[in-house]
Amino acid sequence: MIANNSQRIGVIDLGSNTARLVILNAIPGYAYRLEDEIREVVRLREGMTAAGLSDTAVARALFTLRLFKRFCDNYPVDLIIPTATSAVRDAANGPAFLQTVSQEIGLDLQVLDGEREAYYGTLGVLNEVQLGNGYVIDIGGGSAQVSKVRSNLYQEGRSVPLGALALTEQFVSSDPIEPADVQAIQQQIAQQLDTIPWLQKKQPKPHRHLVGLGGTIRNLASIEAARQSYPLNTLHGFVLSRSSVQKIVELLQRLPVSERQKISGLSRDRADIIFAGALVLAEVMDRLRVESLTISRNGLREGLFFEHFWQHLAYPVVASVRRFSVLNMARVYNYQKAHASHVRYLATRLFNQLAPLHGYDMAERELLDAAALLHDLGTVISYDDHHKHSQTLIINSGLAGFSPRETALVALLTRYHRKGRPTPDSFESLLSEEDLTILTRLAAILRLAEFLERGRNANVDDVTAVWDETTLRLTLIADEYPAVELWEAERNAASLMEIAFERALILESTAVPDIQFGH
Amino acid sequence: MIANNSQRIGVIDLGSNTARLVILNAIPGYAYRLEDEIREVVRLREGMTAAGLSDTAVARALFTLRLFKRFCDNYPVDLIIPTATSAVRDAANGPAFLQTVSQEIGLDLQVLDGEREAYYGTLGVLNEVQLGNGYVIDIGGGSAQVSKVRSNLYQEGRSVPLGALALTEQFVSSDPIEPADVQAIQQQIAQQLDTIPWLQKKQPKPHRHLVGLGGTIRNLASIEAARQSYPLNTLHGFVLSRSSVQKIVELLQRLPVSERQKISGLSRDRADIIFAGALVLAEVMDRLRVESLTISRNGLREGLFFEHFWQHLAYPVVASVRRFSVLNMARVYNYQKAHASHVRYLATRLFNQLAPLHGYDMAERELLDAAALLHDLGTVISYDDHHKHSQTLIINSGLAGFSPRETALVALLTRYHRKGRPTPDSFESLLSEEDLTILTRLAAILRLAEFLERGRNANVDDVTAVWDETTLRLTLIADEYPAVELWEAERNAASLMEIAFERALILESTAVPDIQFGH
Repeated sequence: MIANNSQRIGVIDLGSNTARLVILNAIPGYAYRLEDEIREVVRLREGMTAAGLSDTAVARALFTLRLFKRFCDNYPVDLIIPTATSAVRDAANGPAFLQTVSQEIGLDLQVLDGEREAYYGTLGVLNEVQLGNGYVIDIGGGSAQVSKVRSNLYQEGRSVPLGALALTEQFVSSDPIEPADVQAIQQQIAQQLDTIPWLQKKQPKPHRHLVGLGGTIRNLASIEAARQSYPLNTLHGFVLSRSSVQKIVELLQRLPVSERQKISGLSRDRADIIFAGALVLAEVMDRLRVESLTISRNGLREGLFFEHFWQHLAYPVVASVRRFSVLNMARVYNYQKAHASHVRYLATRLFNQLAPLHGYDMAERELLDAAALLHDLGTVISYDDHHKHSQTLIINSGLAGFSPRETALVALLTRYHRKGRPTPDSFESLLSEEDLTILTRLAAILRLAEFLERGRNANVDDVTAVWDETTLRLTLIADEYPAVELWEAERNAASLMEIAFERALILESTAVPDIQFGH
Repeated sequence: MIANNSQRIGVIDLGSNTARLVILNAIPGYAYRLEDEIREVVRLREGMTAAGLSDTAVARALFTLRLFKRFCDNYPVDLIIPTATSAVRDAANGPAFLQTVSQEIGLDLQVLDGEREAYYGTLGVLNEVQLGNGYVIDIGGGSAQVSKVRSNLYQEGRSVPLGALALTEQFVSSDPIEPADVQAIQQQIAQQLDTIPWLQKKQPKPHRHLVGLGGTIRNLASIEAARQSYPLNTLHGFVLSRSSVQKIVELLQRLPVSERQKISGLSRDRADIIFAGALVLAEVMDRLRVESLTISRNGLREGLFFEHFWQHLAYPVVASVRRFSVLNMARVYNYQKAHASHVRYLATRLFNQLAPLHGYDMAERELLDAAALLHDLGTVISYDDHHKHSQTLIINSGLAGFSPRETALVALLTRYHRKGRPTPDSFESLLSEEDLTILTRLAAILRLAEFLERGRNANVDDVTAVWDETTLRLTLIADEYPAVELWEAERNAASLMEIAFERALILESTAVPDIQFGH
């Protein structure tokens, strides 16, 4: 990313359970990346009474905010967006607390009402998931937000006091939890959800798209991911089924907190409050009649950030999540645009002409397109083995908008863009038998395109394909005789093309050769 | 690396077996990295007669050089350093070939005589290995060079016609090789080595330092590394014992070329010629009476490059290989100098004061120093898990001048600079029981230094340590009350310090606190 053009943006989110500061490095509208993060379990809502926030909770919050402010000043951060949610919103002494923060620390916390909290959480989600029509659920410490999305636009949202910490504080007095406590929580959940018109009872028809965010939901997904030995490093796009939620609820109900802390995937500091949150999720899924929910990494903080990042748009949501996530990654890692674009162009030309042989469509072409733009990213680590590093970078960061299967395929395409016979590596559980054929064919096309652009000067202007039962003939149209490209493609890409398309490959050029390689 | 200040340098090396082009991105004297590489097996010496290079070999060489030139022009490369070695040097039609290359391709190949070839190979080595006094052996396709190094300076070198390809062409007519052919090769080796005064017979006393380079030697090492499941990704610093060489010689002698190609670690296109090269190495090791040789990644091409890179030095060899390799890596990956330097400073302060407790010396301090400068490198990949990425980067690139054990320790220190209980991960085979204690103690110091500089503004000016049998008291001297640093160090670094130094840790500041965290 071009550093001297970028700005640092700090977003502070003082929640009921957790306070977070994220620092993002961004060129608005162009690219962004996470630069630093501090997370502290402040438990601002702990011990809250009719008089408001407790003195010790206020002291913890002040300490943490002072820390965040100092941290931002030291970096330095160009813009701080400081916010607070339900605990401050609900507390009788909230206004006094805000004044103290402003005077003593110099941070003017923006208190988000329930509707705004739902809105920003949804903005975060919509910049990561192409949702179309669906619902978003965010379970926080103090409240939970459910939002409705239509045509990829936030339509309406509601905040209800169903945060995991709030419910636990209010209703849990046993460990392991006893049936009476469980019933009390469930009663409260039912009562609160009944206040949302479109969640009052089971929906007439099942919905397909529900996206979940927030620490509670992420932790539930992370428990399931650990159980499955899920092969990706990020939970973005992870699908959590209603039946998995049920299994986790039953497990948590059986165990005392001390035992819960040993569950793989669950944060120790969430072991006490997660059960109540899981019950909320289960009930919302039942009322919406969804079989599964998709995990979003983004949430409130990212929504606040994107409002700034997409400030030139009428509605701060990226037009195409998938397209932008590929470009953002390419830009962050300083891709060589001219080279990558020409490889993409040649790969697309091959893909389109060979359609009668492979029978693939837009979906596969989009994977090829992404892999072509990202294939050389690994050079940021080192030239040696850069194809392996490209895979590592993609698996590590994830690709917003792409499913785990698609992310694995794009990563594997970059992995095999130079050499090697494509294999599913450690992603076998995400891929079908048919996917391995897709992988081999797209890798063959990408590799051929790469070596046709080995000279890095876009010498090969076009490639045309004709074939019969036994041979595939590719003709290069080039500015000057493509000696380098023919030689490199022949040596490095021909054999995989022959395997992928089960034909002998003939590579030639319309131009007359001026040199020969008598090898 | 600051891109707008750097230049691209292409080094071409037309050898008897292989032609290579490496493109390096460099800011002379400051930092460099490999940017691209093409390698082609040209076998220029194949079919050479009294009349000189064969027509087909010349055609292959011209094709390849034209490719390299076009490649450099397209990048573009700022400076090309084109060279040729023994095949062109020895061929009767060498001068005519050079003229053709100059006229048709525009490359003025510099033909290196045997002494210069030895010199540049040694320059490459001395920029990667702190050799002091020792020998360097480079076995190429056409010739082999042996050089003497005294006080880290090249003293003298000899080139003898003992290249792996030349010997194979001349003496091998059986497959698997028969005793008569082996004897003929050995006779030629003995005869040629006898022409070097300091290699005429076994040396009176054993030598300790022999460094090996070139494809043949790297392949021998790579066979042994594969056999050992060696855990590092680079052969830099790998130690190959005389007895391993012997075992490989015996294995190669038994197998026909077709079977040799299946040996793990051996390049297919070297399977035929490697045996002759292995015999050369074995005999040189015996005459020098060395038990092992250390592998260098650098060679002739890097020597030629360093002559340019260190152009401001009287003698183009880095003053301290270890120091520079750490700095080079930090610079290439754009380290945050102020932060890294302050972490290093605090870590060193702690290390020095705690010396009576740990008993370590310069050697361990150098590892801590390197890890402090490199600890955040992984942020180039992503902020999330950047400690893991730092380890990956170091293991992937290697650290010139550091042994495999030291490289693993530095990588592990960066891996554990934020969290986690240090373990040897996959590097167990390189580390002793004592090394794990070193790892834990140095990781504890590094982590503490990191969190004392969490504010990234060098607020903590100094730290002083006093202890008794049960407690270790650290006092921070800071510009302003170090609330952030105390809090972060307490939460994130204290427990590992307590484990490492078996004392309860008390962290305090000389300044009076202005805020409290009532957690």
